Amino acid sequence: MEKLNSNLIPLRTDFTEKKDRICIFGTGDFGRSLGLKMLQSGYSVIYGSRNPNAVSMVPKGVEVLNHAEAAQKCSVIFLAMHRNHYSFLAELSDVLQGKILVDVSNNLKINQYPESNAEYLASILPGAKVVKAFNTVSAWALQSGTLDASRQVFVCSNDNIAKHFVMDIVRGTGLTPQDRGSLLAARDVENYPLQLFPMWRLPMYICAGLTVFVFLYCVMTMVVYTAIYEKKDVSYYILVTIPNKVFPIVSLMLLALVYLPGVFAAIIQLHRGTKYSRFPNFLDQWMLCRKQLGLVALAYAFLHAIYTLVIPIRYSVSFRRNNGIIEQIKSNNTRPFLYSSTWRSDTYLAFGILGFFFYILLGITSLPSVSNTVNWREFRFVQSKLGYLTLLLCTAHAMVYGWDRFLIFSRFKWYLPPAYTLALIIPCIVLIFKFILITPCIDQRITQIRQGWERMSKTQKDTHLQNDNLAI
Amino acid sequence: MEKLNSNLIPLRTDFTEKKDRICIFGTGDFGRSLGLKMLQSGYSVIYGSRNPNAVSMVPKGVEVLNHAEAAQKCSVIFLAMHRNHYSFLAELSDVLQGKILVDVSNNLKINQYPESNAEYLASILPGAKVVKAFNTVSAWALQSGTLDASRQVFVCSNDNIAKHFVMDIVRGTGLTPQDRGSLLAARDVENYPLQLFPMWRLPMYICAGLTVFVFLYCVMTMVVYTAIYEKKDVSYYILVTIPNKVFPIVSLMLLALVYLPGVFAAIIQLHRGTKYSRFPNFLDQWMLCRKQLGLVALAYAFLHAIYTLVIPIRYSVSFRRNNGIIEQIKSNNTRPFLYSSTWRSDTYLAFGILGFFFYILLGITSLPSVSNTVNWREFRFVQSKLGYLTLLLCTAHAMVYGWDRFLIFSRFKWYLPPAYTLALIIPCIVLIFKFILITPCIDQRITQIRQGWERMSKTQKDTHLQNDNLAI
Amino acid sequence: MEKLNSNLIPLRTDFTEKKDRICIFGTGDFGRSLGLKMLQSGYSVIYGSRNPNAVSMVPKGVEVLNHAEAAQKCSVIFLAMHRNHYSFLAELSDVLQGKILVDVSNNLKINQYPESNAEYLASILPGAKVVKAFNTVSAWALQSGTLDASRQVFVCSNDNIAKHFVMDIVRGTGLTPQDRGSLLAARDVENYPLQLFPMWRLPMYICAGLTVFVFLYCVMTMVVYTAIYEKKDVSYYILVTIPNKVFPIVSLMLLALVYLPGVFAAIIQLHRGTKYSRFPNFLDQWMLCRKQLGLVALAYAFLHAIYTLVIPIRYSVSFRRNNGIIEQIKSNNTRPFLYSSTWRSDTYLAFGILGFFFYILLGITSLPSVSNTVNWREFRFVQSKLGYLTLLLCTAHAMVYGWDRFLIFSRFKWYLPPAYTLALIIPCIVLIFKFILITPCIDQRITQIRQGWERMSKTQKDTHLQNDNLAI
Repeated sequence: MEKLNSNLIPLRTDFTEKKDRICIFGTGDFGRSLGLKMLQSGYSVIYGSRNPNAVSMVPKGVEVLNHAEAAQKCSVIFLAMHRNHYSFLAELSDVLQGKILVDVSNNLKINQYPESNAEYLASILPGAKVVKAFNTVSAWALQSGTLDASRQVFVCSNDNIAKHFVMDIVRGTGLTPQDRGSLLAARDVENYPLQLFPMWRLPMYICAGLTVFVFLYCVMTMVVYTAIYEKKDVSYYILVTIPNKVFPIVSLMLLALVYLPGVFAAIIQLHRGTKYSRFPNFLDQWMLCRKQLGLVALAYAFLHAIYTLVIPIRYSVSFRRNNGIIEQIKSNNTRPFLYSSTWRSDTYLAFGILGFFFYILLGITSLPSVSNTVNWREFRFVQSKLGYLTLLLCTAHAMVYGWDRFLIFSRFKWYLPPAYTLALIIPCIVLIFKFILITPCIDQRITQIRQGWERMSKTQKDTHLQNDNLAI
Repeated sequence: MEKLNSNLIPLRTDFTEKKDRICIFGTGDFGRSLGLKMLQSGYSVIYGSRNPNAVSMVPKGVEVLNHAEAAQKCSVIFLAMHRNHYSFLAELSDVLQGKILVDVSNNLKINQYPESNAEYLASILPGAKVVKAFNTVSAWALQSGTLDASRQVFVCSNDNIAKHFVMDIVRGTGLTPQDRGSLLAARDVENYPLQLFPMWRLPMYICAGLTVFVFLYCVMTMVVYTAIYEKKDVSYYILVTIPNKVFPIVSLMLLALVYLPGVFAAIIQLHRGTKYSRFPNFLDQWMLCRKQLGLVALAYAFLHAIYTLVIPIRYSVSFRRNNGIIEQIKSNNTRPFLYSSTWRSDTYLAFGILGFFFYILLGITSLPSVSNTVNWREFRFVQSKLGYLTLLLCTAHAMVYGWDRFLIFSRFKWYLPPAYTLALIIPCIVLIFKFILITPCIDQRITQIRQGWERMSKTQKDTHLQNDNLAI
Repeated sequence: MEKLNSNLIPLRTDFTEKKDRICIFGTGDFGRSLGLKMLQSGYSVIYGSRNPNAVSMVPKGVEVLNHAEAAQKCSVIFLAMHRNHYSFLAELSDVLQGKILVDVSNNLKINQYPESNAEYLASILPGAKVVKAFNTVSAWALQSGTLDASRQVFVCSNDNIAKHFVMDIVRGTGLTPQDRGSLLAARDVENYPLQLFPMWRLPMYICAGLTVFVFLYCVMTMVVYTAIYEKKDVSYYILVTIPNKVFPIVSLMLLALVYLPGVFAAIIQLHRGTKYSRFPNFLDQWMLCRKQLGLVALAYAFLHAIYTLVIPIRYSVSFRRNNGIIEQIKSNNTRPFLYSSTWRSDTYLAFGILGFFFYILLGITSLPSVSNTVNWREFRFVQSKLGYLTLLLCTAHAMVYGWDRFLIFSRFKWYLPPAYTLALIIPCIVLIFKFILITPCIDQRITQIRQGWERMSKTQKDTHLQNDNLAI
């Protein structure tokens, strides 16, 4: 034990005299890690415990007293204990009167209790200044010191002075406090560390479903069909050739799905004649995950780009190319230069490259630090104008790439059209509706609705006209 | 109407009891959207109107009173009305005494009025606590709830307590308040949502001008010349071949234009012998848009990279390559391996790749969140040292690529040099001047000037020497 | 002099009347630049000097008084002077009583003095409100106005009102204040502008060392060996071929080095049976620079990707390919299609592309603005789960690429194994240990330890069991 604790001496002893004394209730894992961190940051630490003499696992250099004594010596008390122990604090309400109580607790589930732990604590001890903080940092993170992740600590309290006091302690430990306002924010602050990409779940399911479907479609029409009818083993297609069909197809579908809810919303608003009504729930959900859908689409587009650029390096491709030349020479049959092929090849490459470029531009502008520097007008310009341009370019890319193949039924396998046609269905629907929606007469009506105009029955109209003169 | 309003019930009724009552003056679009948002966030909302009985368009669950009654019941009043209606508020000055007035108004033009709306309001109602907020969020954004853009709300006020009160309301609606200080900032806060990429305009014009010029130059020398003198149709060049000349040429020009004003500034300072004098206006403008110029240059370099990597996939390229092999075999004339070609090809590729790599590094460090984590010393190291290294590598890339072609006058078309020489003019000027400026004797003088040294006439010198002894 | 000063008139004179008067002690470079900036931002400026009549180098439009007179007229005084002149301010302690003193000073070295300049100043003038600010902005940056770097100004003070007053001045000059808490932060704020990528030094040394070693290894086995034994000059390899071996090899080594310290830490904790002991110093250092190591690894992987994609464009490659075809035809010996080669080629390309994709994903999530939006659970999911997936994919990529070459001793040059085997040593060690560590029995123990469990001797155990019942 002695040997162990010799490692626990504070890192910067020269600071000790300058900083305050803090108290920690609870000698569990988080309590100990927090105490060690505070010691290392130059604070002197007093632990509060029911049975101070029996406590042996605390960092060296700290005092251990009973709760009341410990609380009396400090103005700030960290409560490193579970919510269900809070009730016993009521006994200490005299001692804790006017003290700053820092609630560092977390729950096991999102919205586990009707009110947040910090608000519950404040209701038990109305005389204390409750501050919610440090719950977003794990004991392991405090301990390991290698804080390469977020250094942000959310702080909220109904008492401004107490809040700023705790924010200074946060800064003293090398972390960055973020003011989240009053204790009303405590619920969100307590839920925050329990989340695991909640916004990404739906887009991920959609993406996984589409990916599996298109992959199987391609395997059926390209590998299985060839194996059965042409007796040729092209199973190696599943490594590069088929992924390079799946990624662009799903990417284009997802990009179209980003803009489809906007089209739906406009149609619903046109039909209802007002914007002051809530959308169906699925549409709300869908609109909220558009950014994530777009980013998955971008990731797939990126993979498609690299898979395409890698083509000339592939063994099977260069083998086939070399064989083609050898056969041309043997048969003494030089193929003519086809202008139409040149135009087609260069056109879809140009569309693809420009589409990919705007795709990436959209991705960059959705980085939090970039989107925070643009205002709403600019953001909508980028996401709407550039977004539709991207969709248009990528759809054109797929169309020119496919050319007339979707018409040659003789090449259909099992009556299934070529895979690229799958990719074009949703984008074409979105683009056609968008073209209709931006025709002047309809566009004008939507603009009116979004500026607050409402279509009304005759009787309502009269009232409204009357109001217009009065409305301030 | 009943059906409509049934959609307007608050989302989280369980919160209602906890939060404050807020008042909104104005039942226009923004007023209604704001009221709905506040209801959904758990506030109880009272509208103030001239004729409360005639108002029918407000969300369900709110009270509508006349202005004075509504104001009396709340401590916070949102003014969702136009500036030109503010004057009538003077009548209510007694009721509004000590209240927090939130000015959410925007103007139609930048700097439309001599003072900001918020300052104007404060001058009309000196007894009220005016806070500017929420103007950067549109009614549509409040309404749709899909705030994938900036969630930032700029808040400024001369009254700190009122400001923090409003900042808590902002947090309560799920937005992020940003403290912008006193009401002096109101003008900037009001101008902010009206901007549409003001810093990007000049760089975009420069870029568009150069792009069109270089494109036409290439079309003339490559397509039109070939059509006239060689009777060959290579119009398909305009899709990939010519863009892949235009993008790198303009990119290199723009990159050089990023560093040219710094060279100018140094020469002006050397000539004037002081840094305490303002630069000509065009130079100030130019220096302010260097970052944007650099980012456009990076975008073009990125396009150049993809256009280049796509070369082996192009139909025309692979056709020409295959034909070359077939002709070699038919003529039985094997070409020898040229060491000089290997060195040249690998050298310009290596220069190009490394240049592109540093280009991207510069781009990443100019992301707001990255440049905020570096200090000035680090930023200047990256942007100046790495920037010039990038310029040097890209210029070398273009030179080795072009090799001796600019000397072979027989290949000039219409006496016009090959396009790549256009790209080299500005970079070479910048690099030559930079090499002169970093020679020890000149560099030392510039460093002195930038540290505050000034060249003076004889009489001034005497005074200054005297001052030096006294200066604190 | 007259001509010079005519350039110094404020930019926005219309604002002058609205803003406060500030005082600057010191007419050196920073004092003058600051004064000019304040004038341009609409403040009226009074300089304090020992000999006001002799001062001639200040911007036009300012007053120059002696120190006491100047201080009396303003509530805010900027001290643009060196720390060693602070002692004379003690004479003015009566006049400076209650004034806000802004310490803008910097030192020449990190931790030059035992306490920070601002704390030293506060100890000399206990009656003044000392605020540390503006030291992170250079005179040149203030002057040039082209603040494309960080606009952040760190502000700290023990007096909250004074701090917010200065933060408003910072905003008034177009910069962004950042509250760093009390004067305890002054030391860090003063050290900040002196740093030059301190966290990057160790990763850079490691990376440079590995790069040079692998480069020389490749030059020896590929260029020198060929020159000596096969009498062939392939020195042009050093431009593209060898870099394209060095970059992936070093990248994979560095990526493994990112995860090696985590494995070490787990083993140490398992061995010691506790997490409450400090790691050896080198391990702490290593863990702190993991992010930087990973970013360098990503940069090298990026270069490897471009160098690889550029292969088909290289002269030497296309020459060799064409020659191969011509020889096949001449010898009338068509090579067969090898399924194994196809599978191998496509497999390592697929592994490489997916590995690169996750590499980039890791890079994006380590951008400050992105990592700030994820909580610890999410960050650890990405960095640990995705990180190991990336390492696994890249290791598999290298293994399939190398295939059985490391077994063919006849192709070893000077008994040296092929270069790619170097890359595989550390990743394989890391992956093997990781596989052992995630076996259920060991993983459970590590999880226990990281949750605070400690292995104890018999006597300790008894005490601890007792404690467990009491621990709150």
